[in-house]
Amino acid sequence: MSSPTDMKIIGKAARRVEGGRKVTGTMPYAADVVAPRMLHVRLVTSPHAHADIGAIDASAALGTPGVVAVYTGRDVHPSGPEPSNRAESILARDKVIYYGQPVAAVVAVSEQAADDGATGVDVSYNLRDAVMDMRAALQPHAPVVRAKNHPAGWDPSQLRTVESGETDVALLPDNVTGARRITRGDVNAGFAQADVVVQRSYSIPWVHQAYMEPHATTATPDGFGGLTIHTCTQGQFITRDVTARVLGLKQSMVTVVGMEVGGGFGGKASLLAPLAGWIALRLNAPVKVVLTRAQEQALANPASGAEIDLKLGATRDGTLVALQGLAILDAGCYRGAPLGLALPSLGGWYKIANVDLVGYEVLTNRPGTGAYRAPGVPQATFAIESAIDELADQLGIDPLELRLRNAVAEGDERLDGTPWPRIGMREVLEGAREHPLWQARLAGEAGIGLAVGSWPGSSEACTAGVRVNPDGTVIVQLGMNDISGANTTMAMLAAETYGVRLEDVRIATGDTGSAPYHGESGGSKVTYTLGPAVMRAAEDARRQTLAIAAAHLEAAPEDLEIVDGVVRVRGADDRSVTVGEIAAMSMDWSSSIEPVHGMGKSAITDEAPTFVCQIVRADVDAETGKVTLRESAMVQDVGRALNPQLVEGQIIGGATQGLGWALWEDLAYDANGQLLAASFMDYALPNSEKAPPFDVRVVEIPSTAGPFGAKGVGEPPIIPGPAAVANAVAHATGRRITSLPLTAPRVLAALQE
Amino acid sequence: MSSPTDMKIIGKAARRVEGGRKVTGTMPYAADVVAPRMLHVRLVTSPHAHADIGAIDASAALGTPGVVAVYTGRDVHPSGPEPSNRAESILARDKVIYYGQPVAAVVAVSEQAADDGATGVDVSYNLRDAVMDMRAALQPHAPVVRAKNHPAGWDPSQLRTVESGETDVALLPDNVTGARRITRGDVNAGFAQADVVVQRSYSIPWVHQAYMEPHATTATPDGFGGLTIHTCTQGQFITRDVTARVLGLKQSMVTVVGMEVGGGFGGKASLLAPLAGWIALRLNAPVKVVLTRAQEQALANPASGAEIDLKLGATRDGTLVALQGLAILDAGCYRGAPLGLALPSLGGWYKIANVDLVGYEVLTNRPGTGAYRAPGVPQATFAIESAIDELADQLGIDPLELRLRNAVAEGDERLDGTPWPRIGMREVLEGAREHPLWQARLAGEAGIGLAVGSWPGSSEACTAGVRVNPDGTVIVQLGMNDISGANTTMAMLAAETYGVRLEDVRIATGDTGSAPYHGESGGSKVTYTLGPAVMRAAEDARRQTLAIAAAHLEAAPEDLEIVDGVVRVRGADDRSVTVGEIAAMSMDWSSSIEPVHGMGKSAITDEAPTFVCQIVRADVDAETGKVTLRESAMVQDVGRALNPQLVEGQIIGGATQGLGWALWEDLAYDANGQLLAASFMDYALPNSEKAPPFDVRVVEIPSTAGPFGAKGVGEPPIIPGPAAVANAVAHATGRRITSLPLTAPRVLAALQE
Repeated sequence: MSSPTDMKIIGKAARRVEGGRKVTGTMPYAADVVAPRMLHVRLVTSPHAHADIGAIDASAALGTPGVVAVYTGRDVHPSGPEPSNRAESILARDKVIYYGQPVAAVVAVSEQAADDGATGVDVSYNLRDAVMDMRAALQPHAPVVRAKNHPAGWDPSQLRTVESGETDVALLPDNVTGARRITRGDVNAGFAQADVVVQRSYSIPWVHQAYMEPHATTATPDGFGGLTIHTCTQGQFITRDVTARVLGLKQSMVTVVGMEVGGGFGGKASLLAPLAGWIALRLNAPVKVVLTRAQEQALANPASGAEIDLKLGATRDGTLVALQGLAILDAGCYRGAPLGLALPSLGGWYKIANVDLVGYEVLTNRPGTGAYRAPGVPQATFAIESAIDELADQLGIDPLELRLRNAVAEGDERLDGTPWPRIGMREVLEGAREHPLWQARLAGEAGIGLAVGSWPGSSEACTAGVRVNPDGTVIVQLGMNDISGANTTMAMLAAETYGVRLEDVRIATGDTGSAPYHGESGGSKVTYTLGPAVMRAAEDARRQTLAIAAAHLEAAPEDLEIVDGVVRVRGADDRSVTVGEIAAMSMDWSSSIEPVHGMGKSAITDEAPTFVCQIVRADVDAETGKVTLRESAMVQDVGRALNPQLVEGQIIGGATQGLGWALWEDLAYDANGQLLAASFMDYALPNSEKAPPFDVRVVEIPSTAGPFGAKGVGEPPIIPGPAAVANAVAHATGRRITSLPLTAPRVLAALQE
Repeated sequence: MSSPTDMKIIGKAARRVEGGRKVTGTMPYAADVVAPRMLHVRLVTSPHAHADIGAIDASAALGTPGVVAVYTGRDVHPSGPEPSNRAESILARDKVIYYGQPVAAVVAVSEQAADDGATGVDVSYNLRDAVMDMRAALQPHAPVVRAKNHPAGWDPSQLRTVESGETDVALLPDNVTGARRITRGDVNAGFAQADVVVQRSYSIPWVHQAYMEPHATTATPDGFGGLTIHTCTQGQFITRDVTARVLGLKQSMVTVVGMEVGGGFGGKASLLAPLAGWIALRLNAPVKVVLTRAQEQALANPASGAEIDLKLGATRDGTLVALQGLAILDAGCYRGAPLGLALPSLGGWYKIANVDLVGYEVLTNRPGTGAYRAPGVPQATFAIESAIDELADQLGIDPLELRLRNAVAEGDERLDGTPWPRIGMREVLEGAREHPLWQARLAGEAGIGLAVGSWPGSSEACTAGVRVNPDGTVIVQLGMNDISGANTTMAMLAAETYGVRLEDVRIATGDTGSAPYHGESGGSKVTYTLGPAVMRAAEDARRQTLAIAAAHLEAAPEDLEIVDGVVRVRGADDRSVTVGEIAAMSMDWSSSIEPVHGMGKSAITDEAPTFVCQIVRADVDAETGKVTLRESAMVQDVGRALNPQLVEGQIIGGATQGLGWALWEDLAYDANGQLLAASFMDYALPNSEKAPPFDVRVVEIPSTAGPFGAKGVGEPPIIPGPAAVANAVAHATGRRITSLPLTAPRVLAALQE
């Protein structure tokens, strides 16, 4: 294998292998899938956030030309309790629990006919009070989204104390579906030592992943109980397993073809597959479901909002001594809020001797939540990184220096008691300190703030294959659905490892039948865990190639090298054979040589947490409160930048989303549960005009297990944005704003206080 | 691995895994493929067998509503000589060389519009004399199908003597494209010893594979020079490589999706892929080409006809002493007649000391030839097995006994000088002798004849994968296009080897990107060569499963067994874990266990020739000459019947095709080269009313390398039919008919001689 010093491909900028097809519009997406005799589905959704379903009259729909069938929850779930999880809740039956919940599915021969039919489904509702506020949802007598089984003698007016670790939710009110507590030291004693204490409540809205491509799924029955599903998914094996479980099929009977994902950011998994599959099996015909943008906003799986109370104390010299917090994460109407990721991010990357953090997951009458880039961590980070900045201000210590003084390093204890592995928090902060933007602040310029973010990383066992064609081109076989350009990195790793040019490597993503296993593309784990599998597969193919070539060239395998697809005897240029010729020998009639086909696996348990520091310079218009971002610097530890262009793109993309959360995005509902942001006209997204110029600086603290030391890059850059902006605004105005987004009216109100 | 004595699945009848979908019409075929904005192609074909192309006026076609483009050979091959092989001859440019040759392609938005447009293409032709008779084609001054480069001083009137081995065709007339000679001993001396000599000329017509599904191909461009091709092919990697070569693309840029094949029998490979791909790239749009039945009959790649002169001598005691032969195989207008398989089949399975066989491949003004079940061997076998029967009659020796007396056995020298491996010719003949049908002949019943056939077998290196799902179902990953039920056998081998129930195994056939390599499904090599690869992949997955289970159950791997998907400690029923649980452990977030995914390869060089003996009982109507088949017995060495039901089905299917060649089929042309059998009304096929009841008896002489000793089953049963019928008719009538098919007029003429 090539050593890091003589690499031809790794570490150099390479264009995305599929980029050309995307920018020219020739890449097919899930909504482009067609099948013979395919039917189209339009969902009829609830206009209410909380209501009992009465009579449903579908006669007008069924009389609409082209309409084939109308299904309701009574067809899908004819008996038993309504499912309590999103995957199984195909259509509501007795009660709707969020605005936009699918109540009926109209199936027709064309999308237009399905649309027309959907207007002819008349549903009667008996309204209930909705619970939309997560603090209210926590209370004992709030409207109940879904009743739970409490133990005998349970008293709803007694909110039990949350124990260290996880608490049995049966003891908590109906809407409280998760509770955990993290403690260290003695938090009261800690605050007793503190010279300065900051105490604030932070409010973080729900936001939507706001991918360009709406969810689209086509399910094609095989006529014998099996299904093929074409869908946009970040994990086709997950979609397969969920669909098989919900529909009661063997996993081998469901084949999911993961189409190119037109933006996922955590939000694309299995949303429509069970519904489409159920209808396809019922009608024994292919059916396609595509969400409208309004449905996408209302019924997909956006990111949880949070309410966080934080109290942070330090001694005069800048030593953090106590942290107390309460974090409420809103799961919407199904469990799944990222409490387990959010809670340890509340101060987890600072050395604080006394900590007491309590977290709740609560249900409200909103759609279920999904993953969104670094789930839960931006919410927590907004709170802790605002608080520490405010503390620095009160202490009169430079906020970067305060962070450095308390920064964790290798060997420090994490909140779960395990030690931090080697990390780059200090290097990232030092990189930020040297950056001209921070130097400008130090020189007295106003409106400059920063924040730190960290992502723990993740891993999942996976497999990859590498096959060589008779013309010397190389196929990398994957089951991974690329959402971030990872295919390009995999091609680079294979080319570098096997010994061919990058343009001779092609990624082949199989379906859940033909592909090697790969889980979800998420958690910044693809390059970190699939990368080594691809390298091992390429090494395996290389070994096979060299063994055949050694016999052919009458040389020892160890005397051979592969350069640009040619196997050569080192030091004897005239003795060579192409890898294509070798492959051809191994794939022929009567050949005695087995085909060149390598397999590689990985099951990584080494952790590789990453750190990022974002600096933002913002102007605040004193008359309107409008915040304008002038520039931003991102200093991120990426372990090793395999493809600097892709790394920079990921960092800028994530940072832009973080700034969207800071300044514009808010998946707002009114108090009755009506969605106020049902289109991209109402839901404000950052675009290239609003985003500032970014300067990206990478720090390379190699991981132990990632390819060439690489770590995950995707999640961290979204994390610090909201806090960095709030800190910059505070630096510009002296006002501390603790509710996101920092819209002009909100900033103006703060200025006028 | 299970030993042959305790097998649960192998050796027991199992239904075809895809059978249900086929008989209920839910299986999609290549013609069912649709793509967004797909265009349709209708070919304009030549009404002449041999003509120069003059002006082509496509204006009426281009004015037809819905027609998008019309292409001719001048677009596809703008300069240079016209290609001399079928794959590259996308459209004729200067000259048509067979009736039905594509001259133009009309592309339209619907199949109907393409049809309408095709009537509006006006092509001028200047007729040439056609050569349709293969003996005439061999002559120096015959019309020339394609001129060749002869060496200086070459004299067309001198037909060179064919040397032993292969002769340089540049020294032979233009239409002669192949010549080889096989000699052993001294044939003249041999005949000098002979007491009885039979000398005959045999005539075998072209026949068509007559699959139900016409060729259909859809090519979809990726917008960046690459193509995805959905087509019916017996070897998707071959289709890929041919298409890439013809269109000048990298193999990695062409992805072929082999659709279910609706009958292939050797005839489905790459016929339309280069054409569809060329148009798709030219228009940057998906295009579909489906042949009409008339085009299928005229321009596909049917089986070569042959003219064979044979002289066979024996001594009074029934020892064959001399064989002389001339075989002319008609390749149509492109090289590819199976001379290399036909010539050694002329007497190759008899011990004959003196042999002199000469074979020619000639060109005529017919379409190019393709493979058809046991290519070349039924033609040769009709000659030798008729001759030996006639010789037996003249010697007064039972024809079965004469064959037994001269039958080859292990260690005897083949015509290529290599020794026969262990074979079952003697056992097959002995099986036939014991059969009631032959016993009836021995008891004096008339109209009973038999013949022997043999197929050398073949092999090709290949790869397979076996993956285990978290629910315990097993996926077998293949790149093989199933034409014979082989997927069912592969599922059985995987289930037996890994240790799950057959219904828990599913075959996943990937495309040429995602699949492991497999060559053509042909030559009766799939089970023989892919079977071991599947078993090795299953063993590999089993080994991985047991290693994980051993750690989990705290037992040694060698103490574990897998039974019906459960891993158990032998003798401790309470210590068990399902294979699904094991798989789930290996495919999870943060797992330290690599996914269970086995790979197996095979590169078999051991040969496994097979033998079959067919007995036929036929009635001949003395007034009309009509031959009616009453019953037939097939005794075939299959090595090991892995799935007896499938083996029997293959044998009956092949035998029926052999009887079709014997009695009805004839892809007849008139002397000018006009096709006379352009539909299934004109081309007589055996159907269930015409085919006799079959009694199949398998002989199991195990192969050294096949799975559980299995050998190829598919080719042999078509081989002996024509000779067996001719021998039965001779036995019934005393008349020896040497031209196929044995139609009523032909038999009547023989009766009236």
